[in-house]
Amino acid sequence: MGLIVQKFGGSSVRDRDHLFRVAHIIANTHNAGNTVVAVVSAQGDTTDDLLEKAAEITQNPPARELDVLLSTGEQASIALLTMALNELGCDAVSLTGWQAGFCTDQAYTKARIQHLDGKRISEELAQGKVVVVAGFQGLNPQEDITTLGRGGSDTSAVAIAAALHADRCQIFTDVEGIYTADPRKVPYARKLKAVAFDEMLELASMGSQVLNNRSVELAKKYNVKLEVLSSMNPVEGTLVKEHAEPMEGTCFTGITKDTGIVMISVLQLPHTAEQTSVLEKLAQNGIHVDMLLQYENPDHSRQLHFSIAVADQSKAMLLLQKQCARFGGAVQADDTCAKVSLVGIGLQTNGSVTAKLLAALENHGIPVSMVTTSEIKISVIVPEADAELAVRVIHDALVNEKK
Amino acid sequence: MGLIVQKFGGSSVRDRDHLFRVAHIIANTHNAGNTVVAVVSAQGDTTDDLLEKAAEITQNPPARELDVLLSTGEQASIALLTMALNELGCDAVSLTGWQAGFCTDQAYTKARIQHLDGKRISEELAQGKVVVVAGFQGLNPQEDITTLGRGGSDTSAVAIAAALHADRCQIFTDVEGIYTADPRKVPYARKLKAVAFDEMLELASMGSQVLNNRSVELAKKYNVKLEVLSSMNPVEGTLVKEHAEPMEGTCFTGITKDTGIVMISVLQLPHTAEQTSVLEKLAQNGIHVDMLLQYENPDHSRQLHFSIAVADQSKAMLLLQKQCARFGGAVQADDTCAKVSLVGIGLQTNGSVTAKLLAALENHGIPVSMVTTSEIKISVIVPEADAELAVRVIHDALVNEKK
Repeated sequence: MGLIVQKFGGSSVRDRDHLFRVAHIIANTHNAGNTVVAVVSAQGDTTDDLLEKAAEITQNPPARELDVLLSTGEQASIALLTMALNELGCDAVSLTGWQAGFCTDQAYTKARIQHLDGKRISEELAQGKVVVVAGFQGLNPQEDITTLGRGGSDTSAVAIAAALHADRCQIFTDVEGIYTADPRKVPYARKLKAVAFDEMLELASMGSQVLNNRSVELAKKYNVKLEVLSSMNPVEGTLVKEHAEPMEGTCFTGITKDTGIVMISVLQLPHTAEQTSVLEKLAQNGIHVDMLLQYENPDHSRQLHFSIAVADQSKAMLLLQKQCARFGGAVQADDTCAKVSLVGIGLQTNGSVTAKLLAALENHGIPVSMVTTSEIKISVIVPEADAELAVRVIHDALVNEKK
Repeated sequence: MGLIVQKFGGSSVRDRDHLFRVAHIIANTHNAGNTVVAVVSAQGDTTDDLLEKAAEITQNPPARELDVLLSTGEQASIALLTMALNELGCDAVSLTGWQAGFCTDQAYTKARIQHLDGKRISEELAQGKVVVVAGFQGLNPQEDITTLGRGGSDTSAVAIAAALHADRCQIFTDVEGIYTADPRKVPYARKLKAVAFDEMLELASMGSQVLNNRSVELAKKYNVKLEVLSSMNPVEGTLVKEHAEPMEGTCFTGITKDTGIVMISVLQLPHTAEQTSVLEKLAQNGIHVDMLLQYENPDHSRQLHFSIAVADQSKAMLLLQKQCARFGGAVQADDTCAKVSLVGIGLQTNGSVTAKLLAALENHGIPVSMVTTSEIKISVIVPEADAELAVRVIHDALVNEKK
């Protein structure tokens, strides 16, 4: 028995049947003696449909009005889910983002939560009700509606769990937990019982869609015990917490691939000052440089290789071509590559892991163009066509080997 | 130049093209040097679609949650219309009911406005913006969303016009104004230049769908100058105001028919006390008795005949049968009749009008089962099958005769 925050994504509440499935999960949790706050997203494709409606009107919708429009999606969800709960005999009440006390900054369409005034939620809970809160939305100091951007509902749920000191924050998704690799692609992928916040941050930032990074950061900051589990089959999921006990026999958490990257090469950089200015220019323009490698040419000029997100490619190329024109360098982009990463505890202290990983890839004829290692991650750049094979090869060589 | 409130119904904003048509009307009004507040309803069939979604979940949705759901309709409309206005280069901002300061009572799904705090609207107007307000919705003292019920957006518009002392409140509909009769049915029906509040109240309460009665009552109370006009063809419409100048050559405002009535007959009432108790019982149960007639039988018992709304028929019959069982009376219902009414100024002071009206009906073989007259209205009960003919006959005999 305790206070539990349960978050359900858009596909979990997409129609009448799914709404009732979710309502049963909530009602069962409540009937077992727990206090429950449910956080929901907009139903199914609602957000995309609303964006399409806006696009019919204008290619440049004012961000403030886009948030007024998009926030109707979750508002409809909370009303319908609350009706379903009442239909099951479970006393419930819906709260929009502003009713629930979400105070955000000014940044429409990607607002950040500044403060959560949990008074109204607590009052309703004190009356024995299940409280159904609209995720993804808040109110800025001008009392205008804001939305939190991609994955915002996860963040809403964690913020409520933090503010109310909830015993657990359950994130219901369409997978049963966090796996050592994508279970649809890697036959021996295993579900993890627990994973540490830092490992989850690495997994999320590398394209694992299960949890949004902002929500994990917030959970880490306020030490909210997260659980990822399935709304279709609510068996025990994966816990995300401060210190995850290493899984028996292995220190690996998982393997992910990210195909949304481009490798940029700047050849013939005349001296260090230029190299710094290249990176500074990218940073000033909000372009995040991920893996980075530099080495000297025989003529003492330098080469610089790094990966950026595909979305930043054309912007970055424009900036770099302008810079290279000044010092006679050349810039190239390669978008046929992918990043494959192994995440786990103690990777660097176990020096043989990197060696084993590279040997396994070589044995299968997969060329590696770059390697970086950190405390909890080893990443390699491989051809995009080999990326899935690379995930399986690494999984077989390192994760399964330890079973 | 002045402050103008413009209200657009759901069909006027039902899709992209209609939204832009409305945006052009608003932008033109604004560009002509006026200050403009626009009030909009939910797009097209949105409200019905939302009600259907709720009906999929439960036959008895909690009224509070129904209002949370329904209010998303207007919220989407204001965002889209504001985008369209900005696209036309017209600086605009949207406000939901609660942002606009609509404070209502507790009655979910049929709330009444208690107070309108126009501060936010005024602040936005002072910045030169067009303010687009969601009609039909407000906030109760618990800070919960309420909706105003049928015709609520008209009421929202009039409330804003009253609070801001607007120079005019324009209600855009799919007709070009108020006509002497339904122009689709009566060939010589004429558009009125002006009509008095009291006449409009009679017209509205008798099934004229153009303006909601609550909005007319509110306009009368605060002396808001209303104008009814078409969003498809925005020529001069009909003014609704305190004193309408009589139209040249006639004192008649219009003719309406109401087929949604049932005539109830209670025969053999033993004495006056029972008659009072019959009417009291109906009133206690919220059943409004409209036209009423009573007369004595040869044995000094009484007969009571009156009309009620079709929607109240089964409830009324149950109550009356129970009462009649006590004193041995009999009750009958006739739902094959309709009420046709002539509205105008000075009808009672011109005694010949009632006579002419009845003569015209008799000449066309239309039987009249009941007649009532008031200062500004003459109503007759005729067979439902004859109702349309009756409207034309009365129009020809009295309204056109005066041309």
